[in-house]
Amino acid sequence: MFIGVIGGGRCSQKVAELAEEVGRELAKRGATLVCGGLGGVMEAACRGARLAGGRTIGILPGDDPEEANPYVEIPIVTGMGEARNLLIIKSVQAIIAVNGEFGTLSEIAHALKRGIPVIGLNTWELCKGGKKIASIIPAENPQDAVEKALAAVNEVRTPRKRRKA
Amino acid sequence: MFIGVIGGGRCSQKVAELAEEVGRELAKRGATLVCGGLGGVMEAACRGARLAGGRTIGILPGDDPEEANPYVEIPIVTGMGEARNLLIIKSVQAIIAVNGEFGTLSEIAHALKRGIPVIGLNTWELCKGGKKIASIIPAENPQDAVEKALAAVNEVRTPRKRRKA
Amino acid sequence: MFIGVIGGGRCSQKVAELAEEVGRELAKRGATLVCGGLGGVMEAACRGARLAGGRTIGILPGDDPEEANPYVEIPIVTGMGEARNLLIIKSVQAIIAVNGEFGTLSEIAHALKRGIPVIGLNTWELCKGGKKIASIIPAENPQDAVEKALAAVNEVRTPRKRRKA
Amino acid sequence: MFIGVIGGGRCSQKVAELAEEVGRELAKRGATLVCGGLGGVMEAACRGARLAGGRTIGILPGDDPEEANPYVEIPIVTGMGEARNLLIIKSVQAIIAVNGEFGTLSEIAHALKRGIPVIGLNTWELCKGGKKIASIIPAENPQDAVEKALAAVNEVRTPRKRRKA
Repeated sequence: MFIGVIGGGRCSQKVAELAEEVGRELAKRGATLVCGGLGGVMEAACRGARLAGGRTIGILPGDDPEEANPYVEIPIVTGMGEARNLLIIKSVQAIIAVNGEFGTLSEIAHALKRGIPVIGLNTWELCKGGKKIASIIPAENPQDAVEKALAAVNEVRTPRKRRKA
Repeated sequence: MFIGVIGGGRCSQKVAELAEEVGRELAKRGATLVCGGLGGVMEAACRGARLAGGRTIGILPGDDPEEANPYVEIPIVTGMGEARNLLIIKSVQAIIAVNGEFGTLSEIAHALKRGIPVIGLNTWELCKGGKKIASIIPAENPQDAVEKALAAVNEVRTPRKRRKA
Repeated sequence: MFIGVIGGGRCSQKVAELAEEVGRELAKRGATLVCGGLGGVMEAACRGARLAGGRTIGILPGDDPEEANPYVEIPIVTGMGEARNLLIIKSVQAIIAVNGEFGTLSEIAHALKRGIPVIGLNTWELCKGGKKIASIIPAENPQDAVEKALAAVNEVRTPRKRRKA
Repeated sequence: MFIGVIGGGRCSQKVAELAEEVGRELAKRGATLVCGGLGGVMEAACRGARLAGGRTIGILPGDDPEEANPYVEIPIVTGMGEARNLLIIKSVQAIIAVNGEFGTLSEIAHALKRGIPVIGLNTWELCKGGKKIASIIPAENPQDAVEKALAAVNEVRTPRKRRKA
């Protein structure tokens, strides 16, 4: 299972701790973490996952694999700038958004457009015509976020062809 | 001047009328309209601009120039799906969002991240921690939207090298 | 009609003269020139087209419209680096390659893969298993290149829906 | 080490055997195989690598992870069509081209432009002005190709920051 973790490239210590725990919980459940590969929430989540023995993929905006944070196991180098956000969304079965700014909001919007479940920890709320749009599944804490993400994947999962080898 | 118009690929008659008037007002002021080139808000805005003698560019998601609506004068074919949204944002000096769903929200977020002014007609509101984020400039009507877009461009404009020929 | 002109971002004076004449001949025949928007062959071709009253589109690799050469009338900003080459190929009905290095070769290959006619002026030859592959249509001079490009377009043209307005 | 294997999405049985052996040899030396994730040369190479216990990454052109061949361990979903070829090139330290058509030629050209070593097995030759351009390193057989790829990487390798965890 591939789960995306999205959030700011810089973040407070408190947010980093949330992200690191999200990474750790994903690894403990055998999920592969996919993120944008840079610092802040991305680095903290990768760190949590790697230290717990999990697998991490970083889909990078620039042209250099060395821009990946040191906890990215598999760097994918796109040279596409922020357009790489869409590759994260398309490559995962659910997204956990931790805090985040406008870049995170654009990823949330892309995921919702594609029908990918989005779990939110301290993140954006969406309103239109003064009414809240209940599209983001709110989580209480990192463990809750990971559990809700995996549950959402299992709900939408359709039978898939078996992978060999 | 290049101004983006974003909004849903399908829309109500009422929203189409707003979009068409936005296109017409842009053309009257000599601005080039840039959009995603498909139907709904995009087609209505292009129609308004073309019938008023303006120039229209459609940055298409698919591989076929023929998917452009008939009021696109210059189709740019990307084959990149929704990632083409970013090309619209990057190619304009301001954005007018007319109504719209999650795709429009992702474009608004990208524009705000890049510091491109976003004028909103009947569109999303952004909230975080229960507080409204005042990043979208609200407009009363199409004429107001176009005036606010042009004013925002003139405000942020830095001296640019002259274009020859 | 949209015709792509591809070639190096730097070039000799002699190659620049060829490219400028290609641009001029395209403009005289009412074709819109599409290119990568930078210097060298691209700038020379745009210059030729603009000075002859033609329309020029530059699909730029970077994030800044100001990187366009001064003869680009319509800059499209992609932020995608060399991946923008594909957008040029997809947006035109034929390609004229003027000299060029590996970047040009990749564009030629993409065009041939898509079945877009490629006219070559002083450019690459393709060989496989010691045999020349006759996929690039050779031209004697700029006027010949433009005539062959327009002829190739008319040959492959399928009936298209009418554009209004 | 990340090594790209490129070649046609369909191929003869003989070419498939070459590709499968390339995959197997990469896995035996601990290299991660990166490819376009589809059939033909890509599937054969992935099969060779997986059956020998290696890791395989498929960078897919479409929007569906299920288009990956069954030997892709990590599918990256781009929705960008052939523009995804560049992501393969950017994410590896060397490329092995097995046979291939115009798509492969475009990848070879991109790699050479970026200074990535390209090893060729039965693939394109590049000529200009009637002279062969000696940019592709020819290999005699799959084992030779893999050895030359790894040697080329070690030659160009610059000191890199250590990866943790």
